Amino acid sequence: MIAELLKGKKVVLASASPRRKEILKNVGIRPLYIPSNIDEEMLDIPPYKLVMMHSENKAKEVAQHLDNKCIVIGADTVVVLDGKILGKPNSKYQAFDYLEKLSGKKHLVYTGVTICYKKIVKTFYEKTSVEFDKLSEFDIENYVETRESFDKAGAYGIQGFGSQFIKKINGCYFNVMGFPINRFYQEIKKILMK
Amino acid sequence: MIAELLKGKKVVLASASPRRKEILKNVGIRPLYIPSNIDEEMLDIPPYKLVMMHSENKAKEVAQHLDNKCIVIGADTVVVLDGKILGKPNSKYQAFDYLEKLSGKKHLVYTGVTICYKKIVKTFYEKTSVEFDKLSEFDIENYVETRESFDKAGAYGIQGFGSQFIKKINGCYFNVMGFPINRFYQEIKKILMK
Repeated sequence: MIAELLKGKKVVLASASPRRKEILKNVGIRPLYIPSNIDEEMLDIPPYKLVMMHSENKAKEVAQHLDNKCIVIGADTVVVLDGKILGKPNSKYQAFDYLEKLSGKKHLVYTGVTICYKKIVKTFYEKTSVEFDKLSEFDIENYVETRESFDKAGAYGIQGFGSQFIKKINGCYFNVMGFPINRFYQEIKKILMK
Repeated sequence: MIAELLKGKKVVLASASPRRKEILKNVGIRPLYIPSNIDEEMLDIPPYKLVMMHSENKAKEVAQHLDNKCIVIGADTVVVLDGKILGKPNSKYQAFDYLEKLSGKKHLVYTGVTICYKKIVKTFYEKTSVEFDKLSEFDIENYVETRESFDKAGAYGIQGFGSQFIKKINGCYFNVMGFPINRFYQEIKKILMK
């Protein structure tokens, strides 16, 4: 288990996302949280490359301030519908618009993760397909009123009120929440058991 | 949203499962919890029929004590590996055995749900496929030590320490936790908006 593997190690999460905190807490990890100052630039590159670039920038920026025996973790998540990235909505109207677009359709969620440890920088990504139920205008209005949309890529959270709108997923659920915990376990094992 | 639909209604969950409580709480529903006394008999019938029979027995048993304007919800979840049902483990050794069997394989999770309301009894089920990572003996030992196995079908919880072992799922995540919340929304809408 991850908690056994990381026992006695200094772990830092280069993110302030409460969802990532929760995913790590659930498996018994309580890292230090140091949000990076990196701007998440929206370049015209494939989503898997974009999230890996962002996670690497975040982890490296934080890691360069720390002792290199710390395990520094960076992560970045985007929602992709019909090839277009939906970021965090900047208004009620944009949240409404995103949810209207997601309604009744499948979209993809990509999370990039970077682990910095000693001289190692390992970056990977996971992809999960998410199928949204058909939402009524009333559903969307009520959902936007909950304010759950605002700090989340694609304007929804799969773990809160949003859960009732998700017909099915294919892939890692925790990847949609913002951190692919099983893949992380696989990768950190490879790094530490070398 | 479900919370809007159920506003002012008396809702009863015929179950004491903390996971089902959490799923409903996440969407703003706080039902009365009345566990039924029904024994979950393990008959030799297909799993989808078994969970529907159990959920219906639970809901009906509780409903017959209540005002028929209450919405009574029953649910039952089983884990099925290679056609065999894995129930709740009754010892450390059985938990170890179940996890060893699940390791590196895909299994199915079935949840049956029954809604009793006035003269309506509506029963349905959802199925989710779950792919387990290959677990080491050490993983299994440590996991069993967390005691997370004991009140759970298949000896694992997808939302706690167990999350790190799940490679991917195909279907509804909340169905694996014990209650398919999106399907429930679809069905309760049909019943109440008649």
